[in-house]
Amino acid sequence: MKIVIINSGSSSIKYQLIDMPAKVVICRGMIDRIGLETSNFSYKTNQNSIEEILPILNHKVGLEKISTLLMDEKVGVIKSTSEIDAVGHRVVHGGATFSDTVLINEEVKEKIKQLFELAPLHNPANLEGIIVAEEVFPQAKQIAVFDTAFHQTMPEVAYRYAIPNYLLTENKIRAYGFHGTSHKYVSEKAIAYLENSSKIITVHLGNGCSITAVKDGKSVDHSMGFGPGNGLVMGTRSGDIDQAVIFYMVNSLGYSLNDVSTMLNKQSGMLGLTSHSDLRDIEANAEKGDPNCKLALEMNVYRIKKYIGAYAAAMNGVDAIVFTAGIGENSSFIRKAVCMDMDYLGIELDDYKNETRSKDIREINTPNAKTKILVIPTNEELEIAHQVYDLVLN
Amino acid sequence: MKIVIINSGSSSIKYQLIDMPAKVVICRGMIDRIGLETSNFSYKTNQNSIEEILPILNHKVGLEKISTLLMDEKVGVIKSTSEIDAVGHRVVHGGATFSDTVLINEEVKEKIKQLFELAPLHNPANLEGIIVAEEVFPQAKQIAVFDTAFHQTMPEVAYRYAIPNYLLTENKIRAYGFHGTSHKYVSEKAIAYLENSSKIITVHLGNGCSITAVKDGKSVDHSMGFGPGNGLVMGTRSGDIDQAVIFYMVNSLGYSLNDVSTMLNKQSGMLGLTSHSDLRDIEANAEKGDPNCKLALEMNVYRIKKYIGAYAAAMNGVDAIVFTAGIGENSSFIRKAVCMDMDYLGIELDDYKNETRSKDIREINTPNAKTKILVIPTNEELEIAHQVYDLVLN
Repeated sequence: MKIVIINSGSSSIKYQLIDMPAKVVICRGMIDRIGLETSNFSYKTNQNSIEEILPILNHKVGLEKISTLLMDEKVGVIKSTSEIDAVGHRVVHGGATFSDTVLINEEVKEKIKQLFELAPLHNPANLEGIIVAEEVFPQAKQIAVFDTAFHQTMPEVAYRYAIPNYLLTENKIRAYGFHGTSHKYVSEKAIAYLENSSKIITVHLGNGCSITAVKDGKSVDHSMGFGPGNGLVMGTRSGDIDQAVIFYMVNSLGYSLNDVSTMLNKQSGMLGLTSHSDLRDIEANAEKGDPNCKLALEMNVYRIKKYIGAYAAAMNGVDAIVFTAGIGENSSFIRKAVCMDMDYLGIELDDYKNETRSKDIREINTPNAKTKILVIPTNEELEIAHQVYDLVLN
Repeated sequence: MKIVIINSGSSSIKYQLIDMPAKVVICRGMIDRIGLETSNFSYKTNQNSIEEILPILNHKVGLEKISTLLMDEKVGVIKSTSEIDAVGHRVVHGGATFSDTVLINEEVKEKIKQLFELAPLHNPANLEGIIVAEEVFPQAKQIAVFDTAFHQTMPEVAYRYAIPNYLLTENKIRAYGFHGTSHKYVSEKAIAYLENSSKIITVHLGNGCSITAVKDGKSVDHSMGFGPGNGLVMGTRSGDIDQAVIFYMVNSLGYSLNDVSTMLNKQSGMLGLTSHSDLRDIEANAEKGDPNCKLALEMNVYRIKKYIGAYAAAMNGVDAIVFTAGIGENSSFIRKAVCMDMDYLGIELDDYKNETRSKDIREINTPNAKTKILVIPTNEELEIAHQVYDLVLN
């Protein structure tokens, strides 16, 4: 079954063509800066790699260019768009409406639209991707996979805020959680790998960072809440912060509310603390003694440790901790620092194993450690492909 | 040494006259609704108890009435205000300026004034109390004890937010912490009581609720931050909440920022979830099956558990957990629920001991439990008296 995976952003499209159940990526690429004269376009197969800078007016033009190349005589991989059985769309916000992957119809599109308010940056772009894909791949089944869906199993006690009830019932204000596709993928990998795995904490550290308590395979708590800016310290997002800061900045310092929002989302996190946004630069500078970089790393690590502790309390212990995504998979420094002085939880890292690299699942704790520490490469596209495949088959 | 303790609010004064080092409370009382025609006034000694409703124009009139009664022929306990050696003032916000109790002079008053912006509801009233007390007790030493001081030992990693550095250096935005006098008092009691007590978590549950990680006698982390609304679920305050909620309520739902602030501080917490503000009512209704009351209690407890877990991670374990303040001392239900399913930390409550009542320190864990659970009545006035006494003597 040939499945196109589309992750459509406000000015970008990431795509893959995956053959399932073989899990073979036939083609992948992305378009960036849609709407500008200088859009970036890439298209990669086993045989060919194309990179271009050209004007791509909108998502439709972009997706048509992709489909044209897919069928191209020289670099193509299919003869007709009718060979595409299904298109899997990453949709960021499924609200409380979608707890599972669904076949897209008019009603589903309408519901995704109703959720625009909860994810104004993401859902409109996701819906645009769906509408365009319906035109470009008219014979394929269109399927939506929601970033929030995995967290729909969170109990009330975890997803509710201590605010007046009408804000939940009328205005849908609650914690939803994000990165669900990644947390689901790596927690399932961990469960398959481990013997005793009823209590897992998955730590997704990428551009965005989040952490999930997974009990018996289900998300029971998660660090991102109503929006994707809460919780861990991220590249440019503050993570947890006292709400009083917002009121103080507006009322006493004269900032506009929009300035504060921009500050918290785009100028905070590791960037705000260090003026660097790439963790590798921050680690290198910290090693040279830069105090801001050292502190930022310590804060980042301290926040992760506290969440691990909180979720261990939520589940009455932890069997395994999983690191994933760009930083989680590649920064042995962060992993080591998080696991240091955590023997009260039976955590003991094997320094040598922590330094090795692999594209497979790795166990990096010492042989007798009570709590397993795993590094599991995430693969959101493959997870989406799996879910699309399962839905189409059943 | 006779010490008057003054806790001055915007329209109230709470006071005690304590004889030190004997710790004997000679007199205590309060004035409420200052500025109204129907102010409440109370004055209690061992022999007499006076309660009146009368107009008290301002703090000065109130404190003069107190001093008149203190010297009254019938109900008085001193002959002249010159018998008062010192007045200890509770000051809520000491910012990063005050990490200790200080003798008040013009410079100190100026600095308390500079901190008005950080505590607009509290510091002006505290300063008003100081200025009035200087007039009413002119021969006494005036001493300030800060609610934030105990938390000044927090390391950067705990008090910094992941926001741009200039917001700390120029605007002093960081976590300060509150309820310091209470956390200091009960953690010192715990250390005196216990053998192994390098890692203590103190849980202050009153009108406001907060929790402190105390390592080697020093506050190393705390749930309240820049303001006193963050952290645990409180009577009317939300505690932790995703900052995205604030932006959403203003930008998408049309609330004013002030409305949101009022909602989070006065209409949230247990009140917002249940429409009740008294925990005893909530516990009673929960027992009768009220789902909102049950959930609110569960959320309250869950938040405390997660903070205990987080601070255990911050300190690599915990030797003792201390419950204090109105709810912490009196709600066996909350204590039991917090300690349930926490055996991963060596927590095991003795149900019978948990139900007993006493004004003394109580150990309520089972005999062999690894982690001690203590109930310690807090006494902020006595702690202030201690600090004043020590400062005057040295």
